[in-house]
Amino acid sequence: MMKAALLGYGTVGGGVDRIIQERDDIRITRILEKYPKPEIADRVARDMDEIVADPEIDIVIELLGGVHPAFEFVKAALEAGKHVVTANKALVSAYCKELTALAEEHGVAFRCTPAVGGGIPWLHNLARCRRVDEIREVRGIMNGTTNFILHTMLSGTAFEDALKTAQELGFAEADPTADIDGWDIRRKLVISAAVAFDLLAKEEEIPMFGIRTITAQDIANFRTLGRTCKLMAYGTKSKNGVSAYVEPTLLLPNEPEASVPANYNTISLDGKLNGIQSFYGQGTGRFPTAANVVSDCLDILAGERDFYAKPVPASVDNSDAKHAYYVRTAHRDAFLTGNCVTEGNGFVITKDISVDEMHRWAKEKAASDPALFFAAIR
Amino acid sequence: MMKAALLGYGTVGGGVDRIIQERDDIRITRILEKYPKPEIADRVARDMDEIVADPEIDIVIELLGGVHPAFEFVKAALEAGKHVVTANKALVSAYCKELTALAEEHGVAFRCTPAVGGGIPWLHNLARCRRVDEIREVRGIMNGTTNFILHTMLSGTAFEDALKTAQELGFAEADPTADIDGWDIRRKLVISAAVAFDLLAKEEEIPMFGIRTITAQDIANFRTLGRTCKLMAYGTKSKNGVSAYVEPTLLLPNEPEASVPANYNTISLDGKLNGIQSFYGQGTGRFPTAANVVSDCLDILAGERDFYAKPVPASVDNSDAKHAYYVRTAHRDAFLTGNCVTEGNGFVITKDISVDEMHRWAKEKAASDPALFFAAIR
Repeated sequence: MMKAALLGYGTVGGGVDRIIQERDDIRITRILEKYPKPEIADRVARDMDEIVADPEIDIVIELLGGVHPAFEFVKAALEAGKHVVTANKALVSAYCKELTALAEEHGVAFRCTPAVGGGIPWLHNLARCRRVDEIREVRGIMNGTTNFILHTMLSGTAFEDALKTAQELGFAEADPTADIDGWDIRRKLVISAAVAFDLLAKEEEIPMFGIRTITAQDIANFRTLGRTCKLMAYGTKSKNGVSAYVEPTLLLPNEPEASVPANYNTISLDGKLNGIQSFYGQGTGRFPTAANVVSDCLDILAGERDFYAKPVPASVDNSDAKHAYYVRTAHRDAFLTGNCVTEGNGFVITKDISVDEMHRWAKEKAASDPALFFAAIR
Repeated sequence: MMKAALLGYGTVGGGVDRIIQERDDIRITRILEKYPKPEIADRVARDMDEIVADPEIDIVIELLGGVHPAFEFVKAALEAGKHVVTANKALVSAYCKELTALAEEHGVAFRCTPAVGGGIPWLHNLARCRRVDEIREVRGIMNGTTNFILHTMLSGTAFEDALKTAQELGFAEADPTADIDGWDIRRKLVISAAVAFDLLAKEEEIPMFGIRTITAQDIANFRTLGRTCKLMAYGTKSKNGVSAYVEPTLLLPNEPEASVPANYNTISLDGKLNGIQSFYGQGTGRFPTAANVVSDCLDILAGERDFYAKPVPASVDNSDAKHAYYVRTAHRDAFLTGNCVTEGNGFVITKDISVDEMHRWAKEKAASDPALFFAAIR
């Protein structure tokens, strides 16, 4: 019987508690929650110190989200010799090196499979695969909220309405910025590349463009082009570090990511021995994510002690990344005219442009045309 | 350093040896092979007794294929306290209960992830998932050879030519019966259902129809119907056991299995907490399968000791399974006329028919019309 403390009793935390209550190999004895509900009153902890000082607690499950105080709490737990499972991508992306080292020093496990892909056992399998294979690329749909919005828009729904539905279903936060502007998927890309290549890229160096400005007219244009738009993340080992970027991408109908519905994700690796291997499942949602949290706990109970990799800091190097783009802007300029190959209803298809150059141009341009949208055509 | 014996030095065995030669945590010290090649002469074992008697060997990797003498060899290895990894679906499907019990008795691991899905970590993940979730269904494309043939036929190639190409590429055996008539995928279904439900169905009770009689004209007909044909296996927990069957199935373009190319497989579970989770990768081929064999060895090295489940014998019960079918036969009869909803170029689309009834009819009918073909429309 393993005893666990739960930090955060929100959507996923409540789900974890529900799942664990039906098990006899693990029990949640302490819960840290700012707004405790009556049903957990007998297990609520006064503060993190009480949890750290409790010698009976073997494992701390961190579901607070955000970097602070999650970092301080997880650090204290590891230093007290407790295993940690977290679904917090912001924390792992920012502090994976420090926390991995701490876990190693104290002989405990630090696991975060649900941090990337919700219910999908992606990190677990990426680590299992890379023990044998050389990973050449990681890529995919890694954000369930934006996939839900893009899928809903296929039937003609406006962005705002699709977002509202996602919020009502619990697939999007009240403040959707992290999802729709790409912060969330970028963190997942950092973590995936770290596990795949042992290279820890800095979030802020990775070019990122989200779907906040996509319109029903864009979706109609993509249909005319015979393509479907998905928010994709790509990570490849490059000459001088990691090539990594996040951008809406127009896929052909037979590409496996093109038909991923609702809040589902598809995340893939390309290995020297394995070729493409893909993992599909719900990328957000209470019970899929909670089930993956519990799976990580059971892996620890079965003896798992590692993090997934030992990443070292690395630069982002997109020097080899270039492809065509769909660009919609109200203000055509010399850059766009010079790169235009063909044009349609208010949009331009460009020739191959370097990813860095495209993202830099769009960032500058957005100051005068905040409604600008672009998507890759690979 | 773990020491291993390899039984069988064919396509996959040679691949395993190549991968392990570059590692320093495992070494192949003995190889049992009927037709030894000069490059392995210094490691060839005289017979299985020599391997069983060698106290230095920790793990036996069985890649002989076929039930005998694989069963006797694996049994002897387990009884001698050696772990076993096998890719042999015929063996596991037939003897999983006996071998699991032996492994437990002797405190060693019996693993077979590459037995289903080649390079795909399907069984490993199915077992990881079912510790937490209740699995409602397993299904998918579980045979790389037939998927390669069906995919090749999409461009107008005849069955015989597609099969020949598969053989040339090492994706099909000289005798392709096990693949094209469905024996191979049926065994994989038995193993998948055993791990998912703890219920061990008898192979011979599972209705099975393969793709031996599919023609270029059938493929053209499916295109007219807006569908793609895949050889699918389905397993569901039913009231009185397991509902399980194998049949060609006509999928809509947006179904995830519809666009699976070449020798790739997609295998899925449907879990109460997780919903659909799918695993995609190369279902046959030297290095993907060999990499999965080595991954199983490394799981054992990391402390894995279980089989994936403890299945008990169960009956096949398809009483709830019924759907429409595409049927092409030269000899229309009362059964077909009575069930016909619409017809096309030499084929009939039926109303919903029970799976058992359809397979029974086709088996009888094939005596007079061996070219008969049918496929499910779910």
